[in-house]
Amino acid sequence: MRGVVMYSAGDVRVEDREDPTIIDPTDAVIRLTATCICGSDLWPYRGIEPADHQVMGHEYVGVVEEVGDEVTTIKPGDFVVGSFVISDNTCEICRAGFQSKCVHAEFVAQIGTQAEKARIPYADGTLVATPGEPDADLVPALLAASDVLGTGWFAADAAQAGPGKTVAVVGDGAVGLMAILAAKHLGAERIIAMSRHPERQKLARHYGATDIVTERGDEGVARIKELTGGLGAHSVVEAVGTQESFMQAVGATRGGGHLGYVGVNYDVTIPGIQLFFAGIHTLGGPAPVRRYLPELIRMIWDRTIDPGLVFDLTLPLERAAEGYQAMDERRATKVLLTL
Amino acid sequence: MRGVVMYSAGDVRVEDREDPTIIDPTDAVIRLTATCICGSDLWPYRGIEPADHQVMGHEYVGVVEEVGDEVTTIKPGDFVVGSFVISDNTCEICRAGFQSKCVHAEFVAQIGTQAEKARIPYADGTLVATPGEPDADLVPALLAASDVLGTGWFAADAAQAGPGKTVAVVGDGAVGLMAILAAKHLGAERIIAMSRHPERQKLARHYGATDIVTERGDEGVARIKELTGGLGAHSVVEAVGTQESFMQAVGATRGGGHLGYVGVNYDVTIPGIQLFFAGIHTLGGPAPVRRYLPELIRMIWDRTIDPGLVFDLTLPLERAAEGYQAMDERRATKVLLTL
Repeated sequence: MRGVVMYSAGDVRVEDREDPTIIDPTDAVIRLTATCICGSDLWPYRGIEPADHQVMGHEYVGVVEEVGDEVTTIKPGDFVVGSFVISDNTCEICRAGFQSKCVHAEFVAQIGTQAEKARIPYADGTLVATPGEPDADLVPALLAASDVLGTGWFAADAAQAGPGKTVAVVGDGAVGLMAILAAKHLGAERIIAMSRHPERQKLARHYGATDIVTERGDEGVARIKELTGGLGAHSVVEAVGTQESFMQAVGATRGGGHLGYVGVNYDVTIPGIQLFFAGIHTLGGPAPVRRYLPELIRMIWDRTIDPGLVFDLTLPLERAAEGYQAMDERRATKVLLTL
Repeated sequence: MRGVVMYSAGDVRVEDREDPTIIDPTDAVIRLTATCICGSDLWPYRGIEPADHQVMGHEYVGVVEEVGDEVTTIKPGDFVVGSFVISDNTCEICRAGFQSKCVHAEFVAQIGTQAEKARIPYADGTLVATPGEPDADLVPALLAASDVLGTGWFAADAAQAGPGKTVAVVGDGAVGLMAILAAKHLGAERIIAMSRHPERQKLARHYGATDIVTERGDEGVARIKELTGGLGAHSVVEAVGTQESFMQAVGATRGGGHLGYVGVNYDVTIPGIQLFFAGIHTLGGPAPVRRYLPELIRMIWDRTIDPGLVFDLTLPLERAAEGYQAMDERRATKVLLTL
């Protein structure tokens, strides 16, 4: 099969890789319908994380080709959406809703779903079948559920976005935009998008942002305070992951408020005393997308939500390198790769 | 009046200070019945924080001498307990239960309650009157409510200690011990005290600890994992505030679990990536003691809880310096100063 390999920072190639097969009886092998490039794939691309001849990709939708003997909830021919983290969905941690910390957790990035096929371990606990074969226009939305939508949803939920709440979203990338969509759906009263890009501001408003703040860092915090009677937002989503954006998010949260954060790079260090005196709740980490998948699929199927708009460039898998470049140069928010 | 002044690290004196008077109509002036020395008072004593001729003390119980014109809920002659943070108890932040982040918050440490009298701003929002004059043996317990009990209670609550939960408490100082008492009262199934001191282990067991772990750092984390089927504790309280103890607490919390932390020193820096991959809830900061005071006073009055045992040395105010020394040398867990 064909698949993406990142040879080194900036050097993305599509080449022949070995076809996956069933190894464990809980595995499934799927033929991908679509996959995509994640903001986090840019970290190795930019040399912020190591890149050394590694397979890439952790977002995926596709059709089941084969399942192991112990797989019971999905079968060959099913159209499935899966989380970017493998989970058994039966352990104590999964049952508490934190599938991304499952005792059998494994990052799909290690499997590399920017490819024609993928072996998915713990298929019952990781994949969710859609009610049938989706209309073509639903495929991008379902693909978004695999990570960016699920992650944005978790972030908004972690920030306890809901009725009566003012929610500030730091970051206007795909995850930030999805957090806005989620906050709106969860009933937030006011949603402040922190964004400098006119195109993304437009999409932010489409998804439910009521206010736009263009300032960053301390100025961004001051602006959020201004908009919230000096108190800060009840709920803040951090969807960038740099030192500045993280501390901006801490500063924008009111005392006793909730910060949900869904990505930090390796350079972020949080001054303990600053977090302490902020007096806030935090919840973060790789999102337990599997918890939300059944509901997200239902809402996409019913056309209640339209997360697919975050994809603003579509390319065939063979042209993945162009996709990386477009996202790196911020010419695209998120690139969908067709198969 | 007489009061404590810390001239410099290690140099604590009791000297004449000006009597407090009503300044604002929301003030009260109280005559202290008892005060005490806090673990955090050792930071300037040890030179970890600056010490320069400053008043000391933020825990207090006493009798109201005089109130300003706008004070309505307490009157001269009332016996009162107050939080270590001033709060109006009416602003939006207070109403959400985060009185330590009140828009009028002020640290009582700036007022210095290791003294015969104190002016307490926002008396209605900071002080709570007891049902009557307390029996002498209840005074230490009521004094504990002012900070260590209220702080330990908040920490256990922040960690979501409760039925079915395994709670690990990092630190066997007064706050850690109070967190154990709180976890027990909140219905925790298992309470693991991380403690090396035989005397404190004994008190930890008295207050409800079911297990003792003496290891620290990574070994302490490994031991907690061993005791919890490899998962970590549902609820962890951090009651020390050093780099090692904070990261030990993060590591001891299971994915999706809750960490409550109630003190960090200025040197603590949290690697963002480590907190991220832990996938945990955190809530910390100066405890909103005022939220819990009415209930804590009721339980002390009813003799449901006996927090007063954390005081293991009692000295007259005039001998405060000896008290600091005893705590610094760990000869005393917590020193009560009588007036």
